[in-house]
Amino acid sequence: MDLKKVFEPKTIAVVGVSVTNPLSPGTVIFNKNYHEMGAETIPVNLRGGEIEGVPIYPSVLDIPDKVDLAVIAIRSDLVNPTVEECGKAGIGGVVVISGGFAELGNEGVERQNELAKIADEYDIALIGPNCMGVYSPPFVDTFFLPSERMLKPPAGNVAIISQSGGFIVDQFLSKYAERNIGVSVAVSIGNKAVVDETILMEYFLKDRRTNTVAMYLEGFKEREGRRFLDIAGEFTKNKHLIVFRAGKTAGGQRAAMSHTSSVAASPRLAADIFKQYGILEAENEHEIVSFAKVLSFKHKTIKNGDVVALTVSGGHGVVCADLIPKYGLKLVEFTEEEIKEMRQMINPSAARIAVLNNPIDLTGSAQDIDLEKVFEYLLQLKKIEAVIVLTFPYPPTITMQIGRRLSNIAGRYGKPVIAYVPWLSKYEIIIKGFEINNVPVAHTIEEAVQMIKGLKMRHPKNQH
Amino acid sequence: MDLKKVFEPKTIAVVGVSVTNPLSPGTVIFNKNYHEMGAETIPVNLRGGEIEGVPIYPSVLDIPDKVDLAVIAIRSDLVNPTVEECGKAGIGGVVVISGGFAELGNEGVERQNELAKIADEYDIALIGPNCMGVYSPPFVDTFFLPSERMLKPPAGNVAIISQSGGFIVDQFLSKYAERNIGVSVAVSIGNKAVVDETILMEYFLKDRRTNTVAMYLEGFKEREGRRFLDIAGEFTKNKHLIVFRAGKTAGGQRAAMSHTSSVAASPRLAADIFKQYGILEAENEHEIVSFAKVLSFKHKTIKNGDVVALTVSGGHGVVCADLIPKYGLKLVEFTEEEIKEMRQMINPSAARIAVLNNPIDLTGSAQDIDLEKVFEYLLQLKKIEAVIVLTFPYPPTITMQIGRRLSNIAGRYGKPVIAYVPWLSKYEIIIKGFEINNVPVAHTIEEAVQMIKGLKMRHPKNQH
Repeated sequence: MDLKKVFEPKTIAVVGVSVTNPLSPGTVIFNKNYHEMGAETIPVNLRGGEIEGVPIYPSVLDIPDKVDLAVIAIRSDLVNPTVEECGKAGIGGVVVISGGFAELGNEGVERQNELAKIADEYDIALIGPNCMGVYSPPFVDTFFLPSERMLKPPAGNVAIISQSGGFIVDQFLSKYAERNIGVSVAVSIGNKAVVDETILMEYFLKDRRTNTVAMYLEGFKEREGRRFLDIAGEFTKNKHLIVFRAGKTAGGQRAAMSHTSSVAASPRLAADIFKQYGILEAENEHEIVSFAKVLSFKHKTIKNGDVVALTVSGGHGVVCADLIPKYGLKLVEFTEEEIKEMRQMINPSAARIAVLNNPIDLTGSAQDIDLEKVFEYLLQLKKIEAVIVLTFPYPPTITMQIGRRLSNIAGRYGKPVIAYVPWLSKYEIIIKGFEINNVPVAHTIEEAVQMIKGLKMRHPKNQH
Repeated sequence: MDLKKVFEPKTIAVVGVSVTNPLSPGTVIFNKNYHEMGAETIPVNLRGGEIEGVPIYPSVLDIPDKVDLAVIAIRSDLVNPTVEECGKAGIGGVVVISGGFAELGNEGVERQNELAKIADEYDIALIGPNCMGVYSPPFVDTFFLPSERMLKPPAGNVAIISQSGGFIVDQFLSKYAERNIGVSVAVSIGNKAVVDETILMEYFLKDRRTNTVAMYLEGFKEREGRRFLDIAGEFTKNKHLIVFRAGKTAGGQRAAMSHTSSVAASPRLAADIFKQYGILEAENEHEIVSFAKVLSFKHKTIKNGDVVALTVSGGHGVVCADLIPKYGLKLVEFTEEEIKEMRQMINPSAARIAVLNNPIDLTGSAQDIDLEKVFEYLLQLKKIEAVIVLTFPYPPTITMQIGRRLSNIAGRYGKPVIAYVPWLSKYEIIIKGFEINNVPVAHTIEEAVQMIKGLKMRHPKNQH
């Protein structure tokens, strides 16, 4: 099977457009692809007619052009014959949006088995059934939600695999868009009659667009887990895999069973196995974002977690100091000599009151140049592996250039630097100043610390 | 002393405006109050001159009008004589922005003691020194940060007390503004030579504008803790007190010692004491927001934490189910009969696939009316104390009216309801539909669960 037909199609057919119901999934999918996406989009409906002025083909067999991908959103009892037609028409990729398969129990299981058999016979890369499908910019978007109701992230190097369509839209795409985390492909796998997590991982392993896979996982059915871990171990040698597991508690597991009939391993056991295979486990909604963000930048990993926090707000320093051990990191200590050297490089009114232990608080009397000098001094110190800069741009003495100025210095030393900047649109010049220059910006103090934790977990010495 | 002179002044004097440096704290404070705030604002500087076309008085003693509040931002060695002049001029409120007091050690301690003595002699309500001061809309704002660099929350019923000026601006004011949490007064207490947490709590106990106090606390010096707890116990009988403690770890405590020379009790001990006095402890940055939000609404507290989660996205349900026990809450179980009743009230295509255990997943086939019916059914059930609605407005079959429609029903039953809505500007109609109708909206799934936890912790049976 060739998943490229699904993710980078030149031509797609949407089977199940409705000329009467503008809210039907098929119509929503047709409209968004026809108007917004890169693939040529052809409408199909048994009854023919026209939609948006475009003639509707009664069957995929009637389409004269070569079609790469068929998106199917029709009654479940019509799905299998339609996929068979796709096979006959030489269509290599199919996304089945329709529900009415294994999720219904016995009656649907048989239908799903038949669907898998047809796909196998014609060597079709089939996603679904019972899913949102695929968002693969700029080519195709089969999510049956109007684009104006979604938030779409920029193109980038994070691929997403999810056992929940809702979660992918609301927690991955929206949050990644808000935080400028670029996405290569997002896949809602649904009942995974054919294409499952493992097959997708094999694809993303070779996909040049993808550097990191982020995944929402409720668990595996029997035998799936083993196959997945094998490819995961291979994958994490050169790329990153972030997994957020749901269904970890009794109530959550019962809900997961109803939702995707997945069985989770015991949380403790799974966490250990994940670590062994180099998988970065996101422990909450926030780490889904912070890990993906830091790994989408090009940073060295760190071995010990020896960090320094640099700020101009004492309270931020105290809070950061509390979080650092919580995430398995350490505050580097300074000698009297080092403290003296730092005090000599800053302006006299800051020098009088600055706290130059770790966390370093240069106070509200600091200006850009003071931050720059101390920041560069810290990057030079061998004992420091990474720097957290808690930027506080409210005083007028800190300029909008602070992001660019500090990130320029960071670039000269090659050590990981994470900046916290209040995530306000008015500070976008600072945020961009950091991020276009390879310094990821965190949205909360805790997220900054999580990012460093991610870099530590990904160090070869801290795995296996 | 009369703190009303500080929080609701009719006339303020800003001592320390600069005619040469537009970035000096005094000038920033003069400008923002003169142009933006409600109090009449008078500039003062030893050298006279004029600023923004307004004549500068050389001393507060020269001002003919009655002044309620003097804001002082001058060299530390000039502060005490100036406060003495304020006393002679009959000014009842003073905010000392200037640093150069006890935070410097011995040399400054003496100056600070003298400052306190002067304030005592003239019965001045004095905030500071070494602080940001007071933000009290619509009257006065002494934070020496240009308003265009800050985010200011709407007027409301949450008062803020902070041992860190930076934290108050960045974590309270900005976040509360983003989340529509209204603020009555925010106070950065600095070195608290005169007015401290306890005196402020006594004021807010009687302040009709204030229903909840949210506080950033690094700890207390000797004897302060006892006084504070006494007033806290009194306060929480009728109002709410949220405390976020920093400096809980060894590194954090060392940083707190440098920052505010506070000594924290052991974390475990403090947590127990807080509970005993009815204080709601925020365990992270997120709970600072979620607790303040839920308590700024008029909701009953709940005793057992028996909740139901209602959603149209299976993944959201699973994640919520995992969080509920983590926060000491319980998923109510349904009888076969109840499940049958719910299944009968929803549309056939949703009924075929909906999961009606708790969490309830009505699936993407649900429409507004299905959510309404099941929601009302749940509110009627005696065993349910509170409902979490995880709203998912991406499908076009969920309308922008869903917030108003569900909150109308909620109003008829008087049980606490928390809604999760993706916090996107395009969904503001839904968010407002909930919030103007007494249903607080959460920004993350976890925050929704935290809000319910807050209501449980505030039940009289769960304290003392």
